[in-house]
Amino acid sequence: MSKFLNDKYLSLERYVPGEQPQDKKYIKLNTNESPFPPSPKVIEGLNKEEKEKLCLYCDPECKGLKKALADLYGVKAENVFLSNGSDDILNFAFMVWGKDGAIFPDITYGFYTVFCDLHGVKYTQYPLKDDFSINADDYIGKKEFAVIANPNAPTGMTMEMSDIEKIVASNPDRVVLIDEAYVDFGGESALPLTEKYDNILVCQTFSKSRSLAGARLGFAIGNKALIEDLDLIKYSTNPYNVNRLTQKAGEYAVEENEYYVNNCKKIVENREYTQRELERLGFRVLDSKANFIFVKSDKISGGDLYTALKDRGVLVRHFTRERIKDYNRVTIGSREQMEKFIGCVTDILKGE
Amino acid sequence: MSKFLNDKYLSLERYVPGEQPQDKKYIKLNTNESPFPPSPKVIEGLNKEEKEKLCLYCDPECKGLKKALADLYGVKAENVFLSNGSDDILNFAFMVWGKDGAIFPDITYGFYTVFCDLHGVKYTQYPLKDDFSINADDYIGKKEFAVIANPNAPTGMTMEMSDIEKIVASNPDRVVLIDEAYVDFGGESALPLTEKYDNILVCQTFSKSRSLAGARLGFAIGNKALIEDLDLIKYSTNPYNVNRLTQKAGEYAVEENEYYVNNCKKIVENREYTQRELERLGFRVLDSKANFIFVKSDKISGGDLYTALKDRGVLVRHFTRERIKDYNRVTIGSREQMEKFIGCVTDILKGE
Repeated sequence: MSKFLNDKYLSLERYVPGEQPQDKKYIKLNTNESPFPPSPKVIEGLNKEEKEKLCLYCDPECKGLKKALADLYGVKAENVFLSNGSDDILNFAFMVWGKDGAIFPDITYGFYTVFCDLHGVKYTQYPLKDDFSINADDYIGKKEFAVIANPNAPTGMTMEMSDIEKIVASNPDRVVLIDEAYVDFGGESALPLTEKYDNILVCQTFSKSRSLAGARLGFAIGNKALIEDLDLIKYSTNPYNVNRLTQKAGEYAVEENEYYVNNCKKIVENREYTQRELERLGFRVLDSKANFIFVKSDKISGGDLYTALKDRGVLVRHFTRERIKDYNRVTIGSREQMEKFIGCVTDILKGE
Repeated sequence: MSKFLNDKYLSLERYVPGEQPQDKKYIKLNTNESPFPPSPKVIEGLNKEEKEKLCLYCDPECKGLKKALADLYGVKAENVFLSNGSDDILNFAFMVWGKDGAIFPDITYGFYTVFCDLHGVKYTQYPLKDDFSINADDYIGKKEFAVIANPNAPTGMTMEMSDIEKIVASNPDRVVLIDEAYVDFGGESALPLTEKYDNILVCQTFSKSRSLAGARLGFAIGNKALIEDLDLIKYSTNPYNVNRLTQKAGEYAVEENEYYVNNCKKIVENREYTQRELERLGFRVLDSKANFIFVKSDKISGGDLYTALKDRGVLVRHFTRERIKDYNRVTIGSREQMEKFIGCVTDILKGE
């Protein structure tokens, strides 16, 4: 850092994204990407004509894509916010609604604490229960901005919709954000609650179920006034942050929704296959509704398994935090990838 | 806005981008875009293979593009920062270096005051001289973060490099940012100063000279420690903010630098043509080194000319601020566009 840096950022610890090594071709099961390419119309639709239009600014309002999403989810365009990935939306949300502090679980998406530190938002992290489920009571009636990843990461576990509604209803004077990055793999969305309550924002992404991690597209749905809050920050930082080709890709992806729904079904099947096989090998596998599983073996530590897999060309994610250091988070890829993964794990446990 | 909005943003006035009307096909001379499409390799290079890889996250470090730019400008990769348009970089810069306030001209890029208001940075705006040039003395020896657009917007006028060096050298304890969004149309870059001083950041964009406004790509060059400051914020908000196709487009654009240099030459020719024609029609045209000109007629007000041109299908930019309300900013497009523009202006002045 330079000597000019504002003191308030001196102790800020930036987020560390999952590794993207370029030295050899890995089976990448470490950053929860989709193993499926974007749908045919996305590939065909980003054609010469669209690429030639890159010389023109994109529509900062993203009107076409906003309408497509509004139609898909049965809301109005004014209820939809679009930005450069859901990280971008989360960042804005902590800025605008974190004045009384923020609350979220101790084990959840690691970026929440970074946003808090960046914006000077005080936060409390409530420990997950021993079974790694979220204790809904911790969030009821509190004054702080509450952020619940559902399914949670890196556990993949879900919270009952009735519990989410209780949390939202328990204090109408603060916002509850439900981070549904992984909802399309068997979870239940809180979207219906956005019509009933003005203090809930549902945040989703095109990065996982819609195979567009590299395109950067996140969206949020909520009461019009909440969307205006987010727009205020977007238009005060970077109004054009969703680029032209990504807006088009998003529109085509929504048009071909069925393609992605089918991909999600395949991921669920592959998740069930992987879970069965790992349990057969003696692993504990948390009950996941996401495109990843959180797993632990009594025979090998999380760190050792991570390293042994990497040596064999398979990348998974390992976190060093005490409470979860025995676990690995494994993205669910294609059936072929998961068979290779299981083969590697089998060999590693055999000491081969 | 919602009742949940943090009070500190209540009076924030968001930036208003140039209008992008969709109701008919305009000759768009209002947002300083390039009339030329991206270069052939950009169009061909964003091919099926690249689009299929959109399911994978992009490289947050943008290593390929960083190296290409470093090679082009004769610096090291560690001296290059990449982000989602130069607005994004400016936003980060005000965050990290604005602790002692900021200074910039009264007439300049309108987003600077928004960034200041957003981040609680106190600012002073020094009036341009009567001839609309920047008074370098205003910025010498001051303690505040200084931001100089060179060429300035919306005037298009430049500051002497010797004056910029005086400003930078006059106080090594604060950062000077030179916003060179429009430098490629005849201006002189301050890049050589980044090797000599550790307190200057040069900010540029692919939006104007490189025909990629809709792709969102800005870059900055400066001392390694300054780049680390910017990276700290990028990695604490949205590490993947330059998407996969944009990184590729940027790499190809750098490879085909000659194509863009030639386009810039054409813009300069068209600017000279337009200036001559407007002066023939009695306009005052400021001396511009940008891809736009700032013009004023004694025969028609800035607002009336804007409206009359819009009625004829030509969009230019008009600002309502008192000091510049008699002017219009006109982007320099293709020769054909500028001939049509001159034709319309001629008709309007004739009262036709």
